[in-house]
Amino acid sequence: MKLYFETDYMAGTHSEILERLVATNYEETVGYGCDQYTQKAVELIKKAVGKDNARVHFLVGGTQTNSTVIDGLLSRHEGVLAAESGHINVHESGAIEACGHKVLTLPEYEGKVKAEDVENYISNFYADDTYLHMVAPGMLYISFPTEYGTIYTKKELQDIHSVCKKWNIPLYIDGARLGYGLAAEGNDVSLQDIANLCDVFYIGGTKLGALFGEAVVVCNDSLLKNFFPLIKQHGALLAKGRLLGLQFECLFSNNLYERVSRHAVDMAMKIKQAFIAKGYNPVVNSNTNQQFFLLPNDFMDKLSEDVGFELWGPRGEKETKVRFVTSWATKEEDVDLLIKRLNF
Amino acid sequence: MKLYFETDYMAGTHSEILERLVATNYEETVGYGCDQYTQKAVELIKKAVGKDNARVHFLVGGTQTNSTVIDGLLSRHEGVLAAESGHINVHESGAIEACGHKVLTLPEYEGKVKAEDVENYISNFYADDTYLHMVAPGMLYISFPTEYGTIYTKKELQDIHSVCKKWNIPLYIDGARLGYGLAAEGNDVSLQDIANLCDVFYIGGTKLGALFGEAVVVCNDSLLKNFFPLIKQHGALLAKGRLLGLQFECLFSNNLYERVSRHAVDMAMKIKQAFIAKGYNPVVNSNTNQQFFLLPNDFMDKLSEDVGFELWGPRGEKETKVRFVTSWATKEEDVDLLIKRLNF
Amino acid sequence: MKLYFETDYMAGTHSEILERLVATNYEETVGYGCDQYTQKAVELIKKAVGKDNARVHFLVGGTQTNSTVIDGLLSRHEGVLAAESGHINVHESGAIEACGHKVLTLPEYEGKVKAEDVENYISNFYADDTYLHMVAPGMLYISFPTEYGTIYTKKELQDIHSVCKKWNIPLYIDGARLGYGLAAEGNDVSLQDIANLCDVFYIGGTKLGALFGEAVVVCNDSLLKNFFPLIKQHGALLAKGRLLGLQFECLFSNNLYERVSRHAVDMAMKIKQAFIAKGYNPVVNSNTNQQFFLLPNDFMDKLSEDVGFELWGPRGEKETKVRFVTSWATKEEDVDLLIKRLNF
Amino acid sequence: MKLYFETDYMAGTHSEILERLVATNYEETVGYGCDQYTQKAVELIKKAVGKDNARVHFLVGGTQTNSTVIDGLLSRHEGVLAAESGHINVHESGAIEACGHKVLTLPEYEGKVKAEDVENYISNFYADDTYLHMVAPGMLYISFPTEYGTIYTKKELQDIHSVCKKWNIPLYIDGARLGYGLAAEGNDVSLQDIANLCDVFYIGGTKLGALFGEAVVVCNDSLLKNFFPLIKQHGALLAKGRLLGLQFECLFSNNLYERVSRHAVDMAMKIKQAFIAKGYNPVVNSNTNQQFFLLPNDFMDKLSEDVGFELWGPRGEKETKVRFVTSWATKEEDVDLLIKRLNF
Repeated sequence: MKLYFETDYMAGTHSEILERLVATNYEETVGYGCDQYTQKAVELIKKAVGKDNARVHFLVGGTQTNSTVIDGLLSRHEGVLAAESGHINVHESGAIEACGHKVLTLPEYEGKVKAEDVENYISNFYADDTYLHMVAPGMLYISFPTEYGTIYTKKELQDIHSVCKKWNIPLYIDGARLGYGLAAEGNDVSLQDIANLCDVFYIGGTKLGALFGEAVVVCNDSLLKNFFPLIKQHGALLAKGRLLGLQFECLFSNNLYERVSRHAVDMAMKIKQAFIAKGYNPVVNSNTNQQFFLLPNDFMDKLSEDVGFELWGPRGEKETKVRFVTSWATKEEDVDLLIKRLNF
Repeated sequence: MKLYFETDYMAGTHSEILERLVATNYEETVGYGCDQYTQKAVELIKKAVGKDNARVHFLVGGTQTNSTVIDGLLSRHEGVLAAESGHINVHESGAIEACGHKVLTLPEYEGKVKAEDVENYISNFYADDTYLHMVAPGMLYISFPTEYGTIYTKKELQDIHSVCKKWNIPLYIDGARLGYGLAAEGNDVSLQDIANLCDVFYIGGTKLGALFGEAVVVCNDSLLKNFFPLIKQHGALLAKGRLLGLQFECLFSNNLYERVSRHAVDMAMKIKQAFIAKGYNPVVNSNTNQQFFLLPNDFMDKLSEDVGFELWGPRGEKETKVRFVTSWATKEEDVDLLIKRLNF
Repeated sequence: MKLYFETDYMAGTHSEILERLVATNYEETVGYGCDQYTQKAVELIKKAVGKDNARVHFLVGGTQTNSTVIDGLLSRHEGVLAAESGHINVHESGAIEACGHKVLTLPEYEGKVKAEDVENYISNFYADDTYLHMVAPGMLYISFPTEYGTIYTKKELQDIHSVCKKWNIPLYIDGARLGYGLAAEGNDVSLQDIANLCDVFYIGGTKLGALFGEAVVVCNDSLLKNFFPLIKQHGALLAKGRLLGLQFECLFSNNLYERVSRHAVDMAMKIKQAFIAKGYNPVVNSNTNQQFFLLPNDFMDKLSEDVGFELWGPRGEKETKVRFVTSWATKEEDVDLLIKRLNF
Repeated sequence: MKLYFETDYMAGTHSEILERLVATNYEETVGYGCDQYTQKAVELIKKAVGKDNARVHFLVGGTQTNSTVIDGLLSRHEGVLAAESGHINVHESGAIEACGHKVLTLPEYEGKVKAEDVENYISNFYADDTYLHMVAPGMLYISFPTEYGTIYTKKELQDIHSVCKKWNIPLYIDGARLGYGLAAEGNDVSLQDIANLCDVFYIGGTKLGALFGEAVVVCNDSLLKNFFPLIKQHGALLAKGRLLGLQFECLFSNNLYERVSRHAVDMAMKIKQAFIAKGYNPVVNSNTNQQFFLLPNDFMDKLSEDVGFELWGPRGEKETKVRFVTSWATKEEDVDLLIKRLNF
């Protein structure tokens, strides 16, 4: 029997969402998110993030969300600051550049950026006599948790936010796996903190129990004022928009978003402890649903016979970096089986 | 009780598809369309269109499909020919131009273009001494059925295809409502004809029984060779790609695609006859699921109290053009109720 | 001996400018327009247009000027309104669309747009329920004189400007041949009027005595605040920027701009009268340096043996529309020779 | 008296070119490079580079040349490999990204890239399971000489060219200062070698004696087949195209290009030796017209009182990197004065 730890988007949707989709399937509503389910989801999210004047928009997937938001926030002569390892810099097939904007890279520390690096980048930029010939840093992109599963402390977020405010550039947080970060061991950041410490962020659904869908929260209401036609222009407007509303209504009812997040993190922690016990220390200090290990190739090859996981970068000569991912859908019995197989 | 004839994307998905989505919901598969359901759907579609060497890709919605395909087909200095009324020219928020390409407009005849207009456009273009300063016609976009519900005859398609071949430009068919066109009364074009008479087309799912999803069929296999990263770049790659595969597997099993199409067309024909009987002749000669009438404003206002339909353009002073749309989800009892209400 | 009436950019530069270029050739100045000649030209132009707070930028050519200005004025979801015959819509190889923006076309009346058409376009746009799926009219482009040599009256400009102010969209005037418009018989618009009745315009140099160069005047100083990096991004920043400054300093000293403009218009009027006397009425009511006639093909062919002019569109079956253009460089003796040849 | 060593584009044009521009100023020729001077220049360049089937196009400046060429060479899903320090990556205000393409950076060694780094980048790219989600390396950009004045040996160019051929991606050489590289002490690369070892390159005119202008040489004639409308679309088509032709005709007559190059390099070598003698070793091993030194701030400040040079990056705390540049226009007496001033 094959075990699946490749990604967090392998199964369909959480049972509570599935039931709602089935129950409402034959209803007829207006399209493009002008329906009541979407309106309800917007209200629930505004309440959850603690921002009455926030605007909330629903898109289908992460790459399209990033490119649409960033395209809307930047002026033509500006680029977006991001960690070297940021998803927009690596794994979106150049979607940001396809909109005309350069990704300006910062050093990454287990996927995170440092406030002082942002400060230095911007102050050095304006200290350079030739800066008018260079791409101006027009916003900052970070991910929470990062592509390596790490999270920012509240203090780190505050510092980053302060630098952005000082230089008057928006801070945008990619929350493709937001729930898994909020549920992480040792996390001291709340959903409300996120909303208070950035200008725009999105709450990932695809990887957290929804079939698909991401909820963009515009906290700074002076931004993205013409977002609807931009969503359409980016091909990111779902005809049957209520499907997005329905799913987020579910996720933000009865603590579903928290429940699915906590489950995945618990499963990841079990896996992490098992690898450590076996002598394989994680190569990244992640307390979220992604765990990274450097495995000897022969061990890795054996394990891969009936366990699914991903190589993280090219195969090494003797050892290779791999990633194990849990999700809302990960069954505890599968985790136990995986742990047993570590001992072959 | 409210009746809904606004659009063909108001309900969820056909029961046969819903059952499949539910049945497979907890399965874990690889993402991005590399799963077996998608593979199966590809095979079914290749068989249905009669092209062994076709390539098939699944995207989420129509606008993103159009912009991704067109972006992939054109060189930087080229634009896309389309009817003045073409969806890409009117209702996609400039998605084509956002990719850098001009939409070059042709006269429309109830939404259709004429082969001779295409021929004239291109031959006049190259006859103009200044053509190197103008946007070269690099492909032709047509829709089947058109935005007005009309369809091309086989002869018309052949003529258009010939002009495109003569000038060596790809012909792309937007099939957002393809099934409703194939099922239209008087239609003499088969799905295989479509595949033989163009270079690329797509089979619409969103409006024909799927929750969402469009299947791009690349008939001319010398084109769109690097389509996967382009889909990703356009934000059009669904993480849980199997959802698309599953739905198209269903649509192309047990004639589901034909059945849902025929039903909608039958319902539309009943509506059409009722309006005609009542003295309101259609303003467009459509035999598909969209019907257009010019209604006196007071009659329209009364009708709109408990019947949903769309204005087609701005409200007129005395009369207004309106659109009634049926779909796979339209219930015959609702059509009968509508017809009854025409007689208030 | 061949006579040249094809275009107004066939000769080099006016003798007064040539002298200055030669006199200063070996001076060493900083690049990119930060030199004193450019500063001087900016001051002269601000004075000439009567706007102390205007900003002035120098670019090399017309197409790059149009695309850089329009790219800077529009938001991503917006397009630019222009006459069907507008240069940006026809003869710039899709430069506007290459920046991501649709050209939204208006009817043209000898190349001009009507205020009421602008008003109708915008009010119909916002009256349409589906406008959020369409490209918003974000600015208006007009040319003075137009591509057909016609000019707006002051009243017409005021009306157009009012509509733009009402809808809060910038008005941009392409002044590639501005001087020839200001010098036209019957013109009641001054350079200061132009500056007062639009938000941004440019003063064409290439066609009016300079070797090359266009001066963008930003009258509404809330716009185009980051124009310098945008000029660079568009590849429109001349390294030896002082060449532009020097030329415009010349053009705006000793009334050179007016003198070259008036000369060309005088020559064009002589040609116009000669054609009329010969029985060929102009097909466009132009009093500027471009004159359009419909000539019988045999007459045209004979004439073309030793006179240069351009076909305006494709050759007709029996008659063809042609264009005769004069410039600052047109010699009166050549005009007289042309007139003589009309009588062969 | 102020001395100027800031850049190589501070003066106008070489006397031989100036004379030609003056002599031909009042001639009337067709526009857009269809004139005889341009034709002549094309022939001279084809002969000089030793490629009968090359195509040659003239543009105005470097940034527009780079973005037009790169835009023409890449497919939409591809990016351009370049040194971290490459001009397109640093000092073109994001012109490449504005066309939709990512700049993929390689380590730089005094501005140069290594063939093995190119090989590793590409082979690692295709070894990565997720490469279809990443920007494909579609071409390589290098500069000769580099932004730091260094040059590639023939062996290095051959190795780089081999890697590009192996992976079937075009190699494009930015020759903004090509002549200064060819004239460098120790250079073993000829103009013909350049043409044989890349697919496209350009011969810089702006910095080598012309008023402005760059000559693109398409060595691989299967590429850039529709370059003319792309030049227009990029706003890079000069109306009075003959000005470019004339200047390059001059540069490639009577060895002018070599003469101006050699002069500048000789002057730079004198400066280099003087700094070395004074104890300031160059921080880059450049034998071309750009020389870089790390100077103590107080020394630098004193020197800057009557000598012009540029900071290379932000001012350091105690020492700052500076750049001295010579050109065809640098007078030997000024170099001698500079050297004298090093001894204050």
